[in-house]
Parts: sequence; structure tokens; C-alpha cells
Amino acid sequence: MKRFSALLILGVMMNMAVPRLARGDEGMWLFNRPPREQLAKRYDFQVTDEWLKHVQHASVRFNSGGSGSFVSGRGLVMTNHHVGADALAKLSTPERDLVKDGYHARKAADELKCVDLELNVLMDIEDVTAKVNAAVPAGAAPTEAQKARQAVMNTIEKQSLDKTGLRSDVVTLYQGGLYHLYRYKKYTDVRLVFAPEKSIAFFGGDPDNFEYPRYDLDCCFFRVYEDGKPVEHDDYLRFSTHGLSDEELVFVSGHPGKTDRQNTYAHLCFLRDLGLPLSMNNIRRREVNLQSYSERSLENARRGEDELFMYQNTRKARLGGLDGLQNPLVMQPKLEAEQKLRKRVAADTNLQKKYGDAWDQVEAALALWQGIYDEHYLLERAMAFNSQYFMIARTLVRLAEESEKPNAERLHEYAEAGLDSLKQELFSTAPIYADLETVKLADSLGFLMELLGAENDLVQKIMAGKGPQDRAAQLTAGSTLADVAVRRTLFDGNLETLRQSQDPMIQLAFEVDGPSRNVRKIYDEKIEEPMRQAYAKIAQARFAIEGQNTYPDATFTLRLAFGQVRGYDELGRTLPPWTVMGGAYEHAKKHGDKEPFLLPASWRKHKDALDLDTPFNFVSTVDIIGGNSGSPVINRKAEVVGLIFDGNLESLVWDFAYSDEKGRAISVDVRAILESLDKIYDAGELARELRGSE
Amino acid sequence: MKRFSALLILGVMMNMAVPRLARGDEGMWLFNRPPREQLAKRYDFQVTDEWLKHVQHASVRFNSGGSGSFVSGRGLVMTNHHVGADALAKLSTPERDLVKDGYHARKAADELKCVDLELNVLMDIEDVTAKVNAAVPAGAAPTEAQKARQAVMNTIEKQSLDKTGLRSDVVTLYQGGLYHLYRYKKYTDVRLVFAPEKSIAFFGGDPDNFEYPRYDLDCCFFRVYEDGKPVEHDDYLRFSTHGLSDEELVFVSGHPGKTDRQNTYAHLCFLRDLGLPLSMNNIRRREVNLQSYSERSLENARRGEDELFMYQNTRKARLGGLDGLQNPLVMQPKLEAEQKLRKRVAADTNLQKKYGDAWDQVEAALALWQGIYDEHYLLERAMAFNSQYFMIARTLVRLAEESEKPNAERLHEYAEAGLDSLKQELFSTAPIYADLETVKLADSLGFLMELLGAENDLVQKIMAGKGPQDRAAQLTAGSTLADVAVRRTLFDGNLETLRQSQDPMIQLAFEVDGPSRNVRKIYDEKIEEPMRQAYAKIAQARFAIEGQNTYPDATFTLRLAFGQVRGYDELGRTLPPWTVMGGAYEHAKKHGDKEPFLLPASWRKHKDALDLDTPFNFVSTVDIIGGNSGSPVINRKAEVVGLIFDGNLESLVWDFAYSDEKGRAISVDVRAILESLDKIYDAGELARELRGSE
Repeated sequence: MKRFSALLILGVMMNMAVPRLARGDEGMWLFNRPPREQLAKRYDFQVTDEWLKHVQHASVRFNSGGSGSFVSGRGLVMTNHHVGADALAKLSTPERDLVKDGYHARKAADELKCVDLELNVLMDIEDVTAKVNAAVPAGAAPTEAQKARQAVMNTIEKQSLDKTGLRSDVVTLYQGGLYHLYRYKKYTDVRLVFAPEKSIAFFGGDPDNFEYPRYDLDCCFFRVYEDGKPVEHDDYLRFSTHGLSDEELVFVSGHPGKTDRQNTYAHLCFLRDLGLPLSMNNIRRREVNLQSYSERSLENARRGEDELFMYQNTRKARLGGLDGLQNPLVMQPKLEAEQKLRKRVAADTNLQKKYGDAWDQVEAALALWQGIYDEHYLLERAMAFNSQYFMIARTLVRLAEESEKPNAERLHEYAEAGLDSLKQELFSTAPIYADLETVKLADSLGFLMELLGAENDLVQKIMAGKGPQDRAAQLTAGSTLADVAVRRTLFDGNLETLRQSQDPMIQLAFEVDGPSRNVRKIYDEKIEEPMRQAYAKIAQARFAIEGQNTYPDATFTLRLAFGQVRGYDELGRTLPPWTVMGGAYEHAKKHGDKEPFLLPASWRKHKDALDLDTPFNFVSTVDIIGGNSGSPVINRKAEVVGLIFDGNLESLVWDFAYSDEKGRAISVDVRAILESLDKIYDAGELARELRGSE
Repeated sequence: MKRFSALLILGVMMNMAVPRLARGDEGMWLFNRPPREQLAKRYDFQVTDEWLKHVQHASVRFNSGGSGSFVSGRGLVMTNHHVGADALAKLSTPERDLVKDGYHARKAADELKCVDLELNVLMDIEDVTAKVNAAVPAGAAPTEAQKARQAVMNTIEKQSLDKTGLRSDVVTLYQGGLYHLYRYKKYTDVRLVFAPEKSIAFFGGDPDNFEYPRYDLDCCFFRVYEDGKPVEHDDYLRFSTHGLSDEELVFVSGHPGKTDRQNTYAHLCFLRDLGLPLSMNNIRRREVNLQSYSERSLENARRGEDELFMYQNTRKARLGGLDGLQNPLVMQPKLEAEQKLRKRVAADTNLQKKYGDAWDQVEAALALWQGIYDEHYLLERAMAFNSQYFMIARTLVRLAEESEKPNAERLHEYAEAGLDSLKQELFSTAPIYADLETVKLADSLGFLMELLGAENDLVQKIMAGKGPQDRAAQLTAGSTLADVAVRRTLFDGNLETLRQSQDPMIQLAFEVDGPSRNVRKIYDEKIEEPMRQAYAKIAQARFAIEGQNTYPDATFTLRLAFGQVRGYDELGRTLPPWTVMGGAYEHAKKHGDKEPFLLPASWRKHKDALDLDTPFNFVSTVDIIGGNSGSPVINRKAEVVGLIFDGNLESLVWDFAYSDEKGRAISVDVRAILESLDKIYDAGELARELRGSE
């Protein structure tokens, strides 16, 4: 693992010590608040509204977690192999492993319909801040405020859905500073067109993850259908025909998941001391447990593969973030910047009166949170129940309970606007493996016993006189929820019929529901709502002092980032902005041609046919984070030049603070995609569609 | 992972509900308190003093953690490959990997001297309970009692060493009920004779670990030298020439490490809720960290291999134990047995007066322990400093400090009797890898920050303004302690010269020493000593009520166990007591001949030459635990019939409660050792030495 050098840290310090105007290539910008000024000044690029609208409509969100883009007029969507892997796994069987072996539909009839994949395209954005805030009475107690806010959000979404037929989400920006209504066109008939073998998509595996130089063909193509036909989607991004050059300006349009750059210092300390350590412990135990299961047989490995990757990936990413939080060279400037802002607020009577107490308000909420953190994490976030059966049972139970309430009073995720997407998940026919479910649940029940204590009343009710392994086996073997028809029957019934169910998972979901709702109520009303109000104040204070030319923390919604293709120095050597395809063969050889450094048979076979100097992966200073995986990298003309798939180790601290000293986004160069489609995969027709020359 | 069936649990319950007389084949017996009665009654076997003395003298303790035995008159010692692996790794280089490839010295000159291996042979045992207790004034306060006890133990050991020249250890039995002085002959010139490839020694790897049926040739042979010649050791165990039969009585003589069967119920709850969860978290994070390091290159994998196995092995073993403690079907009978014993004590005025308060005394000590648990674990047990450099630095610092005190006042591990063994370790020339040390230390410093908090004063001193990765790199890169000559110079100097050292690890060891000694003082005086006194009372109460025909919990000292060769039922199928060598080939095939199920080239090459029906591994009801690895399995005539290398999953709860319903010890059958030496490894001369027919 590489470390931050003093130089990098100085870079970060300089960023932090000045008012929080984004500097350099920093920023995950809203499409309705683009960084016009920065682009004009730094790159002499005048971004037009058409350009923005075109790129926005060509961008795709994968509901399974990731980004993508339309790359042909016939509904072709490009993303990463690791974003598509969930869909690939659900289409796989013990006899046909699409994750491992890849797939290529040579004709339309061979395009495989995904089991439960939903894609979203952001059609428009409406600022509803005033509407949301108006619904919350001034001076309302948190309980009342939370209720009013939830009600108005549920209602806005429902009204928008009814009016437009589009998926409608109210998005909280600047942690409560703004509310925007995002309307998405939703696609649920998504078919697999092409995926390479995992061994080249994720060449170098976990060891090479977040490293650079890299040699990964981390791509995957789907086609979106409507009414049984490929959609004709005019806003698509053409593949560039002439590649890109060093230092060239590039853009990334995608869905960064979550950053915590605007958190108060106390909030960062909270993450450092409590939130991240606990979640790292949980991730490690899940990783070790799954690894242990996977090693027992090749079929086990296939079943656990996608989830195991997720844990390995998250563990490595968060460790980089935690190391940053534990480093005074990152934290001290954060503290100083906050102190400076607070001083400027305090110096202005009006600002001080309106916003001065915000930081203490966050701290008070954190103190409360600490007291219920474990319980909330285990029960409401369901970390004690690492089981698909349980999640199905909970959804059924809560759907039945919430459906009896008026829409405005429902828990947000069970409100009417989101029901279609929820059902898409609930009735998924993706396979569930009872042996794997048992192993996972046993481990998480052990985690529950450790955190809340074996003598805890609720724990004893949940365990029903058994140890974790026995109880997990009993719950899983006794449940019939693997059967989609059973789920439909229970869904069609009412709360009372559900209460009569003899399914032990349904019974467990009821058992847990009361205590879990209790802790959620505390969280929603006493922690989240006051923090939302406090962060809204901080955001207003920032707008007042620094202006509105800023970007909010990432929220898994569409953002525009920009930067330059640029290499960097590491341990005294200069890493070039590009690798080439020939490098993959050398890299494999250096590691003894052993997994995960063993190239697939197809690559070994067609080596001679390739132009080994074809650019393969490249790095840029574009500001990205998890969730950006699969985002297109485009040039000034909005042509695709690359495909984001990773960041380097030095970018892992970007959760909390951006620096372009050594932090880099890593992309697949489209030239390598075309070269491999042509020369390795005999997929000329797909390459022609991408070139727009078919 | 398999679970305990209700039937097994009933078996355990019956064992527990009656007074704690060992039942069935339970027990890790002292050689000076053998289970004569049980053996006579159950097996009609009259154990003689000669038999005991012979077996005792033929048994060997590996100081690196494990057991072994003399198996020829020319100093040949047999153990497991996984016990010898530490020595094999220290003899390996990037070019010659003895762990992976095995080794075979065809002639004496080829026998490789191990870097720092020490073997012990228990020569005699003396009961010093009266002497130890007499030195502790009746009614002394814990501080005073602890001091007096440490002093008398240091003194007894020193006097014995001076008188006999033998390594002398006072062993605490029954958690303080008895004190025995163990005198060992020590061997430090130990040479490697033969080891098979790891891929057959640990065939099936981590996935098959603790499983049965098994097919592992987990053996390794060393030769003990004195004055440059093989020792002539008369008490050795001959290989049986006619194998063994189903249900046959067998014995195991070895060094079980640690059991907690006699712990009070409160103490078991303490382990369940605090001790084991914390150590499991630590093990998992170390495993994940090391796995991640190992995956980066083949050489990294070689460097981390032995330690990674240790974590995987411990994690799996402890998880089985923790699942037992979390299972009311195991815990409830424990509670009931304790209540019954306490009732019987309470019913006798004299017993009640002498021993009645013991259980509360343990509980009070545990309450104190809870308050300092993390600090003690991190500082004094050095879990915050996962670094060989640090351990060397601490040893040097404490040696210098302790040497200035009279022997009786020294910390036990720095008292004179143990200095030779300590130096053997301190001046070991085994390679230390700076990259690996950095990765390990960074992770454990992160652990320290998480547990004690980033704002803790001592933590801030330790971190010196850096994050975990930066600080670990600074400490490791700056230290010169990898050089044995540097260690010798510092050892030869005095405390003052050490204080002047610019080595950052030495400076860190000084920095940590004060706080670490403080927390140790609390632990030694206020926790360990009162618990020792309380457990002594409980032991005396047991002796008074149940008689002395019991065995103490394991203490990594020599014990005799017995049992029968016997298969068991699992999930409806009957597992046979034996596997055969041919089964290994089938097992490999079933797993696609992929690592860790890939047989070594030698086995694939010589398959046709083998008698595939040769018994390979077998199971028995003998009561063993970690530390017993490498123990000989012998028959009534004290001939070797097997070699202990594992227990099955159902035996993992034996840390806390024995049951022979399904729990089994797993051994290599000596017939497979001989067959493979003859037919696979062309090692006829070694086979002849083992057969005694050379």
C-alpha cells in the first residue's frame, strides 16, 4: 500500500486552508449548476446548455450501483464489467458462468434479458427547496419537522409521478442546503450484448485493484429495449475516432455515490472513531467468511464471487479513507478551514444569528447517534441479518404495514412513487442459494450477539435458544421465500394474512420490526433531522461567504466532473498517462502467469493479431468516487474517449479531500475496446456500431 | 461449516450435569497423575511407571508451538509439517522455498541446521505447591501476594537450573490449584531431515482444515544433535509394524496449549462477550491484511505464508469455540454444573467458609479486567505493534531494565532461568522483511487508534503526528534492528546506552514501556493474582467433593490422553475411521485439480507405484487441542501408529467442553508415511530407520 508523501499532503493543505472554493480540477458538479467559470478560465471551454442536456440524456444510472452511457442510436449502453457483474451472475448457472467466461450475442435474438436490472436516465431537474422548506413550520420540534419533511417529499414525488409518469426522487443536496426533484425515465427490459472474460476485465484481481499502471478491459455492453424493440435514443455519445492526447481536457458524466467532504470536523472524527472502524470490522468478517465459503468448491466460488469482490473492493477503498482520517496532515487543515469559516460567520451579526449554532447542533446530534449507533446499524440497517430471505421478509412486512397508511405518512422507501422499483426487486427471479444464505446469516447473527451482548432480551428472542449456526440453519431451511410465487401470494394478501404466516423469516421480520422502527424513529427525528437543519445552515453560510459556485457532496445522482489526462510521479519514477495492450502480457509474465494474473485463453491465442501499442488504460485528474464506475470519459465534442473503472490508491482519500498531486481516476481507453472487439472477440459488428459506421 | 446436532449436545449436557469427573475418553492427564482407574476399567490396561517414563522421555516440545517425538535411537524427531513450517520458512530464500517444495537430506551432511529452533524434553516433575503457597503470607494483600509469588517462582526456577542445568519452569495447574516444577532437557542444534511438499502436507488447504475425511501427509522429520553428533536417545518410540485396528485403544502424548473447561460461568461469558470477539476481530484484520499483501506477488506470498496459515487456522478454530459459547445448549449445562457444585460447597460449613466466596472473587476480578482489557491487550500484549522490530526493541529495553534488579524481583519472563531461551530468540538470524513489517505495523497502529481513540494522549505520542501508514513506514525504515550484530551491541551495552539509541523502534519501546508496565501491574496484582487465589479455592473444593482423579486445563505442558479409533455419523452418512491414499487422487479430481486441491508433481508421477489402499488418515476419540499438533499416537506397546495433525469441526468446542459423540482427533497413519517415503520420495533409508530395520 502506498502512502501519501509530504508533498501531496501540502497540496491538500493548500486546498483546505483557503475558503472552500473548489480549486484545480476538483468537483462533482450539478448539471444545473455547472462549473462554467472554471472551464472557461482554465481550459477556455464554453460549456453550452445543449452540450449539457445532450450529455445528461446520454448518461445512465444502474440501479444496482454504477454508471453508464448510451453509445449508439439503437439503445446500446456501455458500462464496466464489474458494474454489469451482478446482472451477469444472475444470468449464470453452475453450467454457464457468464461472469467468468464472458458473453457475446452475435445476433439480436441472442441478447439475454437481465433478471432484475433497472436503468435510469435523468430527464430533468426541478429546484423544490422552497416547497420543501415551506412545508416545515418555522421553529417546529424535530419530530414534527421530520414528519412534515417526509410528508412533503412523499407528496412531491407522488404528484410528479402522476403528472409525468417518470420516476421522481427528491434529492437532498448540501446535506440539507437544497432539495432538487430528479425525474428519471426508467428502463427495465435490459439485455446483455457483450462482456469479456472476468480474467481480463479484472486482470490483476484484488491485488491490482486501485493500483496503477493497469491493464483491464473492464467493459460490458447492454441494449435497452422498449415494447420488445431496441429503443431509439437520439442522445447517445459517439466513440471518438482519433483518441485523445496527453493533457487533453476530458469530462466524466456519472453518479458518484457518497463523499463526506463538507462534513464538520466533529462529524469526520465520528466517522474516524466509530463509523468507519465498525463498518470495516463488519466488512472484514464478511470478506473472511465469504472467502472461506468460496474456497470449499468451484461452485461455491462462483456463487460468492460478485459479493466477495464487493467486500474486497470496499475494504480496500475505505481503508484508504480511514488512513486519511487518521492522518493529522489531512485532518488539521480540515479543522483550520472550519475554524476560519466559523470565525467569518461569527464576525457578521446577522450570519451568526442565523447560522452560528449549526456546528454545535451537528455535534449534539452525533452524541445522540453514538448511543444508538450499534442498534441502528444492526437492526434498521439490518447488518445483523445478512440474508436475502430476511430482506424479502422485511420488505413484505413493511409494505403491508405501510400500505395501510396515507402516502404522506409512509416511510420514504415505501411511498407510492418508489413502489414499482421496489416490486422489481422483490419479485426478482435471481437465484438464492440456501447454503450461502445460511453461512452469511450465521456470521451476522454472531456479530449481533457480540455487539448487543448474548444476554440482551431482543438478542435472546432473535436467537430462540440457539447458537448462531444452528439458528441460521433453522431460519433458512424453514423459509419458503426463495419461491417468487410465495412472495407474490404474501404480497397480494394483507397484514393479517402475513401475521399468520408460519415462515420463520416472516416471523423474525415481525419480531425485529418494532425495536427496529423504534431506533429508526430516534435516528430520523433526533439525529438526521437536526443534522439536516444544521447542515442547511452551514450551506447557507458558505453560499453567503463563498458564493454559490460550489458543488455539493456526492449523492449517487448525476454529476459532471472534468480534468486532464496526466501521469504522475511515484517513488521517484514517473508513471505515464497511458499503458498499452502489450503491457498486459508482460504484467502476466512477471507474475508467473498465475491467477489473477493469468490472461484468458482468447488473449493468449490472438496476441499476434493485436497492435500491442494500442493504448489500454489511462489516468486523469477527474474528480470521481465509487458509483462513477462505468461513467463515460468524453472530450470537448462529447465523444467517448474512455470508460472510468477505478481510482488509484492515492485517490482513496477523495472521500474526504480532493488532491490532484497524485490522485488519479483510471479509465479504459476506447481504442483498446475497439481493438479487442475487432481482433480478439470477432465482434466486428459491435465495433462498427460503436464507430457509428455500421 | 457443520453444526452441532441435538444428539451431540445431549451428550455434552450429560457430561456437564454430573460432577466434573471426566467421563468416557475425556482428559488431558498429567504424567504424574495418570488416569490409571479409567484405563483399567474401560480398557483393561494397567499403565506402569516404566511405560509412563518411557513415553514421557520420548516426547518433545517444539518451542515454536507444537509437539513431537523421538522415533529412532539416533535423535530422529517426528512432528507435523505445519509445526516444522516456521523452521522451514526461516531456512528458505526467494530461490529455495522449502515450505512449498519440501526437503530431503539424503546424507548426514545435507541435514540443514535450523535457525532458532529449540526443542524441550521433560525429564522430571516436582510438586512445589507447598513451597509456592508457603512463600505467600496468609491474608496478604494481592499486591504483596503477587510479588511474593513471582519471587518464589523465579527463585525456584533459578535454583533448579543452577542445580540440574536443566531448563526449569514452574507450571500453574488448575488455574492456581497446584504448582509443579517441570525440568526440561533443551536441544538447540536441530537439523532438518525430511519434509514433503506443502501441497500434500496441507492438501485441501484452509477449506479442508478441520474437516474430515482428509488426505494429508502432514509430517516432517528433524534430527537432534549435540556436540556436532546425532544424540543417542534411548527413549524413542518405534514405528508399529502392523498398523492398528478399528476401536483399538490409542494414546497421545503431547502439549495441548490452552483449554478453558474449568472456567467459572462468568468467566466463560467474559470470553464470549469480550475476549473472543476482540481477538477474532484482530485475527480477521490481520488475515485480510496479510492476504492482501500476499496476493501482490509470488515472493510476497512466500514471505507471508506461514503467518497467514496461523491466522486462518486460529480464526477457524476460535470461531467454532465462540459458536459453542454463544449456544445455550453448551452454556446452560455449564451453568447448572457450577450451581450444583456451589450448592454442595454451601451445604458444608467448612467448605463454604474456605471456598464459598471464590466464584464472586473471579467475577470481581473480571469486572476490573473489563476496564483495562483493551489497553492491556494493545500495549502489554503488544497487539498495537505487530512488528518483529518492535518485539526485539521491547525485549532489549526490558532486558536492560530487568537486569538491574535482583532475580526474585524481575518480571517472570526476564528472570535468569529463562534467559538462554530468550537469547536464542533475540539473536535469531531468521530473515525479517521490511515491506511485510511495514504493512503489518500500519494495520496494528490503525487498530490502536480505533480502540483507544485518535485523541488519546499516548496514541498521539505513539503516532507522532502521522497516520498509521506513514508512521509504520517511518519506524520500520528507520530501524536497524534487522541486523543481529546491532542487537548484540545493544544487548551488551547497558540501560543508559540503550536510552541514547537513535533507533526509532527503541525509542518507541521506551515510550510505550511505562504505560504498558502500569497496565500490567494492575493486571498482575488486581486481576491475575485474585483469580489465581479464587481458582485455587475452586480446585480445592472440587478435590474435596469429586476427588483428585481429575485433570487440569491445558497449559502447553506434557499430557497423556487416550481414546479409541472410531468413525462417526454425519448428516446421515457414516464416516469411516480411515481414509486411504487412493482417496487423495479422487479428492483432487473432484475439486478440478486446482490449488489447494492440486497434488504435488511427485504424487502424480508415482501414483502407479503406490498401494492405493494404504490407510492414510484416521480419526479417534482422543482428547486433544491446539498444541497437540505433531504428537505421536501410540498403541499399548508404546509403538507409533499415527501422528496427530488436526481435529474435526465438531472438536472445536473442546476448548470449553469435551464430547466424543462426533468430535474427533485426526492423525496421519504411519503406514502412509512409510509408503510415501518408500514409493514417492525415494527415501528408503529414512523408512528403514523408522522401521528400526536399518
